[in-house]
Amino acid sequence: MTDTSGTPVTTGAEQIAVEETLTQNVLHSFENCTDPRLQHLMQALVRHLHAFIREVRLTEDEWNAAIAFLTEAGHITDEKRQEFIMLSDVLGASMQTINVNNQAYKNATEATVFGPFFAEDAPEIPNGGDIAGGAPGQPCWLEGTVTDTEGEPVPGARIEVWEADEDGFYDVQYGDNRVAGRAHLFSDDQGHYSFWGLAPTPYAIPHDGPVGKLLEATGRSPMRASHLHFMVTAPGKRALVTHIFVAGDELLKYDTVFGVKDSLIKYFEQQAPRTPTPDGRDLDGKTWARSRFDIVLAPTEADSGH
Amino acid sequence: MTDTSGTPVTTGAEQIAVEETLTQNVLHSFENCTDPRLQHLMQALVRHLHAFIREVRLTEDEWNAAIAFLTEAGHITDEKRQEFIMLSDVLGASMQTINVNNQAYKNATEATVFGPFFAEDAPEIPNGGDIAGGAPGQPCWLEGTVTDTEGEPVPGARIEVWEADEDGFYDVQYGDNRVAGRAHLFSDDQGHYSFWGLAPTPYAIPHDGPVGKLLEATGRSPMRASHLHFMVTAPGKRALVTHIFVAGDELLKYDTVFGVKDSLIKYFEQQAPRTPTPDGRDLDGKTWARSRFDIVLAPTEADSGH
Ligand SMILES: [Fe+2]
Ligand SMILES: [Fe+2]
Repeated sequence: MTDTSGTPVTTGAEQIAVEETLTQNVLHSFENCTDPRLQHLMQALVRHLHAFIREVRLTEDEWNAAIAFLTEAGHITDEKRQEFIMLSDVLGASMQTINVNNQAYKNATEATVFGPFFAEDAPEIPNGGDIAGGAPGQPCWLEGTVTDTEGEPVPGARIEVWEADEDGFYDVQYGDNRVAGRAHLFSDDQGHYSFWGLAPTPYAIPHDGPVGKLLEATGRSPMRASHLHFMVTAPGKRALVTHIFVAGDELLKYDTVFGVKDSLIKYFEQQAPRTPTPDGRDLDGKTWARSRFDIVLAPTEADSGH
Repeated sequence: MTDTSGTPVTTGAEQIAVEETLTQNVLHSFENCTDPRLQHLMQALVRHLHAFIREVRLTEDEWNAAIAFLTEAGHITDEKRQEFIMLSDVLGASMQTINVNNQAYKNATEATVFGPFFAEDAPEIPNGGDIAGGAPGQPCWLEGTVTDTEGEPVPGARIEVWEADEDGFYDVQYGDNRVAGRAHLFSDDQGHYSFWGLAPTPYAIPHDGPVGKLLEATGRSPMRASHLHFMVTAPGKRALVTHIFVAGDELLKYDTVFGVKDSLIKYFEQQAPRTPTPDGRDLDGKTWARSRFDIVLAPTEADSGH
């Protein structure tokens, strides 16, 4: 106790024991949990959380900063803004969850992140209809088929599509209750679908909040590669949440939410003014684009991994 | 592709590679971070977060539940209520951070959790003054010394104390801006301090929010062992955030935030009615209690671990 060299009496082994004992006590606190899955999740969470704190020797200032970050994220989150989903997205946690739950199954279309901009109750359009709803952007004809992994058409599949306008904003970001750049339609008897949308453009995820500050502080861009969202559901089929990306987009290798998969990159062919449109639509001399996305749905059983 | 047995073509090794590649991509996204500590923290966080998701095979429903939990925690948090600190507390993350940053140093008093109920600007009282401010509870005389690890008195140390009333609530939980059960005082020229407080009583942490639901769902109690909070600061000394606990309290082994340390358990002696008080205070025939807490402060250098 009178050691004046400044060397702590405590040894490394004692300190390790203090920390390990605490972790074990926390793990034991869940021993009366009657839901085995919840118990497993909480105990695994505690193990990894404590391992993180101990490994990085988290300082009290850093802990305070983490609490402040979560508090700020909570306060900016409302019905239209979901900072926690964005946080999960930029840490790759959303994409990793997608990976875990959507293992490759034969030739089924790959899944990617859901994102924070889906909205329930998007209007229904017929095949060949327009999802733009007045949103500005280059018209883009999309078509394809929905089939199962045996190549059989899937008629009546519900196809939700949503995308940002050419200014990089989703309708819900305008705060005026507009509905634009989103719709749902159904595949026809042959499993075909088609619609007019907008040629996808790159956009920044909302970065005026704590997630944006985190990206800036860590030298990361808030940009997402150009994409168009799909969610496709049909009876007996695994729900597919995915995007298509635009071949040649220089952001394909920087997408800030790690959503890009090679199989989801599609060619968008630019059409000169007055090129005849597939459905005879008169675009008044504007250029337009077209692309094709053939969707292959895994069976529901694919969820269980066999 | 025509395998109708339902066996996925994908092998385990392919799936592992998909997941590992994603984690590596996320780690690489921080390579331009110019703050090496922040880079280290974020990369370690990503490694542990991804390891958790992959190990438990987190489902999309569970991911959604986690987002909803954080959202709800954010919305219940305000200036008076800090759900994120409580979450950190009940997962033992707060206590582990305390452990990491307050390694045992010679005979210095041990630290424990800060908790969510500290308030700035608590009133100053003289030695022998009363922190109760009208809060109900059994009067309790507290006294002790503040010394350094060589046994030398530390005069002028600032001692913040705060505690719940006998109903188990801190002043800030009443929502009427009362200030009670908290104060600060300074050790005298000999390093002595003394004050009247309330005999500590057990209480439940606020459990009407998502953290409370989590505790209930996992079969855990929201109760904390009886305690009185101290924060002691002095020039050249490591700041000490701690509690004292009450010997014999049956909750000592169940404290829901894992704050109990053996060295912080003190005897609170019950005094019969009309037992003379140390300062002659007339308690009008009420019982009272007394305890002693001698505080030993580590030097600032103890922070760096040598
Ligand atoms: Fe998007
Ligand atoms: Fe407390």
